[in-house]
Amino acid sequence: MARTNRIWKLRKRPVGDVSEGDLELVEEPVPALNDGEVLLRTVYLSLDPTNRIWMSDRDQYMPPVEIGDPMRGGGIAIIEESRFDGLEPGDIVNTGLGQWALYLVKPGSEVNKLPQIPGLPLTAFMGPLGMTGMTAYFGLMDIGKPQPGETVVVSAAAGAVGSMVGQIAKIQGCRAVGIAGSDEKCKWLTDVAGFDAAINYKKEDVGAALDKHCPDGIDVNFENVGGEIMDTILTRLNDFARMPLCGLISSYNATDPVPGPYNFSMLLMRHVTLKGFIVTDYIDRFPEGMQAMGQWLMEGKIKFETDVVEGLENAPAALDRLFTGKNLGKLAVKVSEPG
Amino acid sequence: MARTNRIWKLRKRPVGDVSEGDLELVEEPVPALNDGEVLLRTVYLSLDPTNRIWMSDRDQYMPPVEIGDPMRGGGIAIIEESRFDGLEPGDIVNTGLGQWALYLVKPGSEVNKLPQIPGLPLTAFMGPLGMTGMTAYFGLMDIGKPQPGETVVVSAAAGAVGSMVGQIAKIQGCRAVGIAGSDEKCKWLTDVAGFDAAINYKKEDVGAALDKHCPDGIDVNFENVGGEIMDTILTRLNDFARMPLCGLISSYNATDPVPGPYNFSMLLMRHVTLKGFIVTDYIDRFPEGMQAMGQWLMEGKIKFETDVVEGLENAPAALDRLFTGKNLGKLAVKVSEPG
Repeated sequence: MARTNRIWKLRKRPVGDVSEGDLELVEEPVPALNDGEVLLRTVYLSLDPTNRIWMSDRDQYMPPVEIGDPMRGGGIAIIEESRFDGLEPGDIVNTGLGQWALYLVKPGSEVNKLPQIPGLPLTAFMGPLGMTGMTAYFGLMDIGKPQPGETVVVSAAAGAVGSMVGQIAKIQGCRAVGIAGSDEKCKWLTDVAGFDAAINYKKEDVGAALDKHCPDGIDVNFENVGGEIMDTILTRLNDFARMPLCGLISSYNATDPVPGPYNFSMLLMRHVTLKGFIVTDYIDRFPEGMQAMGQWLMEGKIKFETDVVEGLENAPAALDRLFTGKNLGKLAVKVSEPG
Repeated sequence: MARTNRIWKLRKRPVGDVSEGDLELVEEPVPALNDGEVLLRTVYLSLDPTNRIWMSDRDQYMPPVEIGDPMRGGGIAIIEESRFDGLEPGDIVNTGLGQWALYLVKPGSEVNKLPQIPGLPLTAFMGPLGMTGMTAYFGLMDIGKPQPGETVVVSAAAGAVGSMVGQIAKIQGCRAVGIAGSDEKCKWLTDVAGFDAAINYKKEDVGAALDKHCPDGIDVNFENVGGEIMDTILTRLNDFARMPLCGLISSYNATDPVPGPYNFSMLLMRHVTLKGFIVTDYIDRFPEGMQAMGQWLMEGKIKFETDVVEGLENAPAALDRLFTGKNLGKLAVKVSEPG
């Protein structure tokens, strides 16, 4: 049975926001499997801010996607064919690093079969039990080292990572304050996710709101955004604050050099520990993170949302939702049905 | 015997560089001692970049000096009178936090008697065995965590802290590369202090020189300066580099907001750990640092220079040497004779 793949390829490097024509959806025959390989059909494609970094030739944590190559991405897939012992057609897996494509051929050793847990939607494996959940867990726990009674602030708080950070902070006995870009998101953060306070940076004076909601200063700043909001947070850090540096979304679409924080000196004055990290730094400890997050999910202590866009053809346009503040929770593209 | 003190008081906050008239040298009678107090006569006044921070009302790690108050500073003094058990006239002590003054009255419990070591000049207690030595030791060892074979870069390398950092790095089996502001300093760094290479940032292309002298990238950036030099270093950091943030001298005299590093995102992309610190964070571990530095001094593995300016009246003008790159090694003002 000859299958036809649909693959988004990078045609040129975006300047600023991703525009129509930067990527091209092409059709290609799916190659035959070699021993040890599996054929995956993508069910959900995960869209993440880091995808935008990969499209640029800026200095980054892994090589950029080359012009003409398939766009890099990951998600959840179903096994269509297998020449790898231990994976059968119908198995649902995490693709690891894959492509923005309907089909993908990979060594079976590089994909992980997902457990089937009654009542738990597949999307949980892109959220609390996926890369974004692990990012939140290890960034906060290992770098942020939250102590009971401390105040944790997180930017992009209604995103896939930020929403987990605040909820884990609450579980650790901290005060959790989120910064997000709409009243709807802020309401979700306080009413559903249990944050102590949420700040709508598009409507509020962030500094004044932080002063109000963080009366004892800020002990942990889980940084996702950078720019002005980070600057505003820096002057409110307590001595010996910790700052997991997870992302700098505000600069990913920039076309000109972006100055670092004007209040950079606060890192010195307040004895701050800042650590840049990529979730794969913690890959050896994922079982610990999965165990903790799974337990909290089962106990109802972690809520999560998924923002699903239908159809692989809509992936490039959907990515923009991350930079315009449109998504609540994990952004994903539904590519095909899980069965 | 009524003594007359001479004290530099802060008259107004400097704008940019410290100017004549920002401080005023006043004469006052020395007050009588209470029980538990000692009268100190300053021998050496230590001048450090942080003095300039204390003159400003910017957000900082301790309260600024108030207008009209004596300028804050520390150094080495001799006990003139004592009403404290354990300190006698003639004892040489470290003043701890003191003043830019000839005399100082302090609780005897807040000053430390210095050991007399044959062949070791008093100035060693402001250098390798003083605050600057402890700054270098703990910043490099505790935050930088240098491993044999790694490359350590230090800015303001011919200063009191930087010159120690490179020498400790060499003792740890690292490659040490210093950045300084004159050929004379660079020559001292390589020929006397044993650095592997030194870069004169006033004459050389720092980026190209770093590429040449750090062929395996940079594992530890001991940051004293900030600004463009820091930006140039950031893009050359290796994955999982460490960055003790000790000072940002380039911004201390600034009159306008100073942008943070344009390459701030490298902290994320390269998984960097940055930690701002003040030497007093390590006060409980000073004995360890003194032991190590003392041992290395005795073994001839640590060289140090002192740049001594004569006369308390010259203190404000001398401070400027730190910001114009005039001093080699520890800058101090000789205020009176140690006897």
